[in-house]
Amino acid sequence: MLLKGAFVLKSAESGIERLDVRIGGGLIKDTGILEPLEGEEVFDLSGKLIMPAFYNAHTHAAMTLMRGISDDDPFDVWLFKKVLPLEERLDGEMVYYGTMVALMEMASKGVAGFVDMYFFLDDVAKAAEDMGMRALITRGLVDENGEDGGRLEENLDFARRWKGSELIEPGLGPHAPYTCSLDYLKRIAEAARDTGLPVTIHLYEAAWERERYDFRDILSVFEGIHLIIAHAVQFTEEEIKELTREELYVAHNPSSNLKLGNGVAKVSRMIEKGVKVSLGTDGAASNNSLDVWHEMRLAALLQKMEDPTKLGVEDALRMATEMGAEAMGINGGRIEPGRVADLVVVDIKKFHYMPPENLKSHIVHSGSSGDVFATMVNGKWIYFDGEFPNVDVDEILEGFKRSVERLYNRS
Amino acid sequence: MLLKGAFVLKSAESGIERLDVRIGGGLIKDTGILEPLEGEEVFDLSGKLIMPAFYNAHTHAAMTLMRGISDDDPFDVWLFKKVLPLEERLDGEMVYYGTMVALMEMASKGVAGFVDMYFFLDDVAKAAEDMGMRALITRGLVDENGEDGGRLEENLDFARRWKGSELIEPGLGPHAPYTCSLDYLKRIAEAARDTGLPVTIHLYEAAWERERYDFRDILSVFEGIHLIIAHAVQFTEEEIKELTREELYVAHNPSSNLKLGNGVAKVSRMIEKGVKVSLGTDGAASNNSLDVWHEMRLAALLQKMEDPTKLGVEDALRMATEMGAEAMGINGGRIEPGRVADLVVVDIKKFHYMPPENLKSHIVHSGSSGDVFATMVNGKWIYFDGEFPNVDVDEILEGFKRSVERLYNRS
Repeated sequence: MLLKGAFVLKSAESGIERLDVRIGGGLIKDTGILEPLEGEEVFDLSGKLIMPAFYNAHTHAAMTLMRGISDDDPFDVWLFKKVLPLEERLDGEMVYYGTMVALMEMASKGVAGFVDMYFFLDDVAKAAEDMGMRALITRGLVDENGEDGGRLEENLDFARRWKGSELIEPGLGPHAPYTCSLDYLKRIAEAARDTGLPVTIHLYEAAWERERYDFRDILSVFEGIHLIIAHAVQFTEEEIKELTREELYVAHNPSSNLKLGNGVAKVSRMIEKGVKVSLGTDGAASNNSLDVWHEMRLAALLQKMEDPTKLGVEDALRMATEMGAEAMGINGGRIEPGRVADLVVVDIKKFHYMPPENLKSHIVHSGSSGDVFATMVNGKWIYFDGEFPNVDVDEILEGFKRSVERLYNRS
Repeated sequence: MLLKGAFVLKSAESGIERLDVRIGGGLIKDTGILEPLEGEEVFDLSGKLIMPAFYNAHTHAAMTLMRGISDDDPFDVWLFKKVLPLEERLDGEMVYYGTMVALMEMASKGVAGFVDMYFFLDDVAKAAEDMGMRALITRGLVDENGEDGGRLEENLDFARRWKGSELIEPGLGPHAPYTCSLDYLKRIAEAARDTGLPVTIHLYEAAWERERYDFRDILSVFEGIHLIIAHAVQFTEEEIKELTREELYVAHNPSSNLKLGNGVAKVSRMIEKGVKVSLGTDGAASNNSLDVWHEMRLAALLQKMEDPTKLGVEDALRMATEMGAEAMGINGGRIEPGRVADLVVVDIKKFHYMPPENLKSHIVHSGSSGDVFATMVNGKWIYFDGEFPNVDVDEILEGFKRSVERLYNRS
């Protein structure tokens, strides 16, 4: 497949060039001014921009079912009065359709892969496969006095069955140090070492967590394991350097952190210290969009609050693309031969991309998810000019509607 | 004209209903389930949402010419090394085309009117008239030892010529208390009293301004005059109540305030105290988009940073719509018979508007400018389904390109 005529941003730190891109076997094969080979499928993308796709390194995709249910409420009302009672009513069908709507939203906004922590993992995985999107899928794990109701076993069983599939990467999802005992976390870490599974956990999201545990104990439990820590808002300047280690990734969720009153993570300082920071949207009940464009722009603006030289355009782009790929364990995030063909095509004819001289800046500071023309995962279009080639949109919307009605007990 | 079949949000505090809207003579004539009159033009807007249009209460529209020229620079580099040297090279033609691109961006994002402070006012006004957008147009006024190079006279001359026109409202634009002497501000206030013109001024944007002047002296000079103060970031909790007065409006610019390192205005507290707060984008050199959706979402999120109950959905919507109309002196901001027909039509089929139950929340927290289907000003479409009925887009883009080349000395 040959993508002709577009401008290309190869990576966060590149300039923008007029290049053609050849795709084959799910990979980027070549870039340059290229002529079509015999029988090669050609897409004319003149006047558009091709760049590495976005990755959403922290979400609970099926929470689209609860989008907007608890705005402007205090955190405890949000969690205990609104979210948890509804989550007890969820079933696999609801999770499938909730996830599918999340994936349609994300695909139409340039996202090629996501890290998920939820339940009914087979339904999450089926949704990702149906869409053709990459997913690192984990079950939210919690215990009470060491009893986890079989959750870890369920997570491991899912991992055994899905390990090695093309787009789905199983992982383990201990919810947080305040909902998991230290012994339970150790059991999870042991299972991760045995299986080689990556782990994701909420860490230092709210200020009160600092009184409940020491992050060093948690990092020590997961030493040597591929670990994605979500939020990481409450680390002090001093503590940040302890996050600089191989296989440790921060998933920064700026919208959710503001919206739930948790504050602003020190990501500019993290990046200066060499911590690998990716971007996440969190779930739609706490954001409420799954829009990495929102997160990328907000991440940059928040760090500039006191110093406009902080978190520049290239760092913002890198968080949204290459760091997300690395967090997910994908050889993506850059348009280079041999890397996976996860791409987004942006309509740069919109007026907020003018003048075109500072296009990289415009992507971060002026662009919006409405500018996405197409999204490619693993060499295949999952979204193209308003259409989802792999999905029966009407069927999904029907199923989503039915699921919402059942969830809220209206049917 | 009859708008049929849409859902309607009449005002920030309303529920959403299925209603038709009748427009005539630039006004909203009726809402309800309405049948077309004989010969009446009917627009089928089934499945869409009609809501009051947005207003951008603070910008320098022609700065689209300089979009993205100085990201990540300190404020003094931004202003003195990048912006001011370019502004000295501007002429009327450049300002016309820069403004036109700004208006196309704003129209396509649901903005019906804007408050501008710049130069070459006739060209700004011509652009607004050509587009069919409302504008409160002021000249940036500065003096040195009482000498203003004829700027105030130029501003007043423009006002005399344009006063009473349908869409253009002239005003006076003292730049800031640190670029205008107190005597000069008094002359401007006297002129405003003589002519009845509204005034807009940058006030307490940067922290160092507090050492240069006392805001009370400035408010006292403009006592009794319709006054829009832009930014207002540096007011203490205590001082905020002094902003509660008739005819005083704050234009809150959250993106620009973060991006230039000035911080977060206490707008939640302002609203609690009864201060009238509207939203602005500032110019494209400091934002870099002219996207009121960005500002509305960011305004809400920033106030929640420490308390999620602050700045709720209705307040955010009111800032973007009715408060902007009031700041501009327009009888708009609500879909009620007798008010001006300034409307935005939103495509709510996008996935981030699902489920539809909490649609008002989705507009603030999930929506993006890419969702705008049409924008109406004074009963006429200025943007409809990707087209600008009043504008030769190709000619504008050609003129903008030529202006950019001349400005940066490349032609």
